[in-house]
Amino acid sequence: MDGDAIRVGIDLGARSYEILIGSGLLGSAAAFGGLPGASAAAIVGNATVLPLYAPRLDRALSVHYARRVVIELPDGEQYKTWATLDAIFERLLAEQCDRRTVLFALGGGVVGDLAGFAAACYMRGVPFVQAPTTLLAQVDSSVGGKTGINHPRGKNMIGAFHQPLRVVCDLDTLDTLPARELAAGLAEVIKYGPIADVAFLEWIEANLPALLARDKDALSYAVSRSCQIKARIVAADERESGLRAILNFGHTFGHAIEAGLGYGRWLHGEAVGCGMVLGADLSARLGLIARADAERLERLVARAGLPTRAPDLGGVSRYLELMRGDKKAIGGEIRFVVLEAPGRAAVRPVAEALVRETIAACSA
Amino acid sequence: MDGDAIRVGIDLGARSYEILIGSGLLGSAAAFGGLPGASAAAIVGNATVLPLYAPRLDRALSVHYARRVVIELPDGEQYKTWATLDAIFERLLAEQCDRRTVLFALGGGVVGDLAGFAAACYMRGVPFVQAPTTLLAQVDSSVGGKTGINHPRGKNMIGAFHQPLRVVCDLDTLDTLPARELAAGLAEVIKYGPIADVAFLEWIEANLPALLARDKDALSYAVSRSCQIKARIVAADERESGLRAILNFGHTFGHAIEAGLGYGRWLHGEAVGCGMVLGADLSARLGLIARADAERLERLVARAGLPTRAPDLGGVSRYLELMRGDKKAIGGEIRFVVLEAPGRAAVRPVAEALVRETIAACSA
Repeated sequence: MDGDAIRVGIDLGARSYEILIGSGLLGSAAAFGGLPGASAAAIVGNATVLPLYAPRLDRALSVHYARRVVIELPDGEQYKTWATLDAIFERLLAEQCDRRTVLFALGGGVVGDLAGFAAACYMRGVPFVQAPTTLLAQVDSSVGGKTGINHPRGKNMIGAFHQPLRVVCDLDTLDTLPARELAAGLAEVIKYGPIADVAFLEWIEANLPALLARDKDALSYAVSRSCQIKARIVAADERESGLRAILNFGHTFGHAIEAGLGYGRWLHGEAVGCGMVLGADLSARLGLIARADAERLERLVARAGLPTRAPDLGGVSRYLELMRGDKKAIGGEIRFVVLEAPGRAAVRPVAEALVRETIAACSA
Repeated sequence: MDGDAIRVGIDLGARSYEILIGSGLLGSAAAFGGLPGASAAAIVGNATVLPLYAPRLDRALSVHYARRVVIELPDGEQYKTWATLDAIFERLLAEQCDRRTVLFALGGGVVGDLAGFAAACYMRGVPFVQAPTTLLAQVDSSVGGKTGINHPRGKNMIGAFHQPLRVVCDLDTLDTLPARELAAGLAEVIKYGPIADVAFLEWIEANLPALLARDKDALSYAVSRSCQIKARIVAADERESGLRAILNFGHTFGHAIEAGLGYGRWLHGEAVGCGMVLGADLSARLGLIARADAERLERLVARAGLPTRAPDLGGVSRYLELMRGDKKAIGGEIRFVVLEAPGRAAVRPVAEALVRETIAACSA
């Protein structure tokens, strides 16, 4: 393994683990050392990512596991369903994988969520490792143990908290990432600024050109700082009973956009980017942050190549309807993550009239 | 609540809970006091049990929860599938149940496994309470947090460890239990004797007529002693990494019978009853227990009205094939729970030739 890989610890008692960040990690046997032994390792990925990265991962794992099974899933958010999950189970059972099998999720957020949930449920739980290959997965979805699938009635409605044994972020995989997905990942990187770290927000503003040019040093810092912030928040609230909800800044609007347009039309990060613009607008309307702060975030989101205008889902009421179905709703009441100040977020119930104003003001 | 309800604690740290055992509990508001508040309680049961017991449970819960949603499932092991699970999710989502919803599993093992797994996965986990209405569920499946569904390739292959907040065993529900299901429940009661408690085995031998006549005092003792033994074993090994496996005495043979005949032909308890006879025979062949001990267990299983002869599944090799697919297999090797002495069990790999002898000797 590259000797200068950065390690970020996530402190969850018996479920603690490390995030490794660096170049060349997928091909490094050392990056996958010290994991539990098993009669088989299963590499789960999609048809786009597997041809690019499965051979080097398979080689690295061959040092530790005599038998590797590669499970190929179709590529796309629309496949984050029970049918795809069952295809994983079917294959694991056909290959007689027992309950000590270790699953390796090689891919973006969809693969991580599917493989992680498969690991949570297969024979009532097997260990798994995240090897995220998109920026979004490296800075967000692979860290923290959220796994699951979508339901026709809502995104991520079915799932489990199942912590990985390790997260291995190979920055080399970002070289092949389509520009649109890089931007979508930057949405979640940007998010950590307004909710937790103004200095990081300033760093992103200054280094956005380097990030868009995929400069390794810039990406390495962005990923590791994002993971540090997420690790701290998750360690304080593993199962999202309080603090962790601030990680959903922009997500309540974002989920409404994804659901309203039909999953897959906008990337998750695109919807979150736009959702953060609405969240900042709402925070300004509540008098919590200055209008200039909201506009500053909107400019950064735009510079990252992300949408900033709320799409028409069939009127403002449709947004409210979709948001009431969101699982972050408590007892039918809509609660939002708002910015209490630049660098600080909290969850608050917000009057419907104000939410309507924000949607109308931010509409395309 | 009946003042003389027996309480059995199960010590799992932050996930500790109590099992209440007594008459009249389903209609007792006190039996369901002290649970987390929620905007809704969901009562999950099947078409046979709900008409009998949902009204009294609904009344008791109305003291604590303003809104109750009753979710009716079809009755039978063949419905322990993803499709039924999804029907629960669909209904919870349609009723806008949020992630603080408390699920109440009212029924036998199938309902408990389904509702428990639904609770484990709905919005990544909601709390649930077991209200078992069969003897088998009261002494075994409702205690210990195992939840899940069957897969065409194997029983309980997909699931989760998700501990209930409480288990409420109302002995009155056993009055309406078909005789065949009472016997099936007795199989799991009997099991605790040979694996953990010879004195309890002797008590069952002496009190079997009272149990079959549904004497409340006898049932109360049988349920509470069974739960005590199970609670101790589960507390020592929540996720079945060692000791807990002894609870599967008779189950490796039993699962092969269930799978080989097609799920639902034999009740789980019937297959386990017969499986214990094979397990004891195997233990005697290994020289661990006397032939007389194996015969003694076989007589008790027969007196309970359970099958003692292994059905023909298409030859002895078919048994081995089915058992190798069982999730208790480790790395393709078949391991069995055997009796090391009357009242003591352990897991051991057993030579295939000896297993073949047992199946042949015990065949119908």
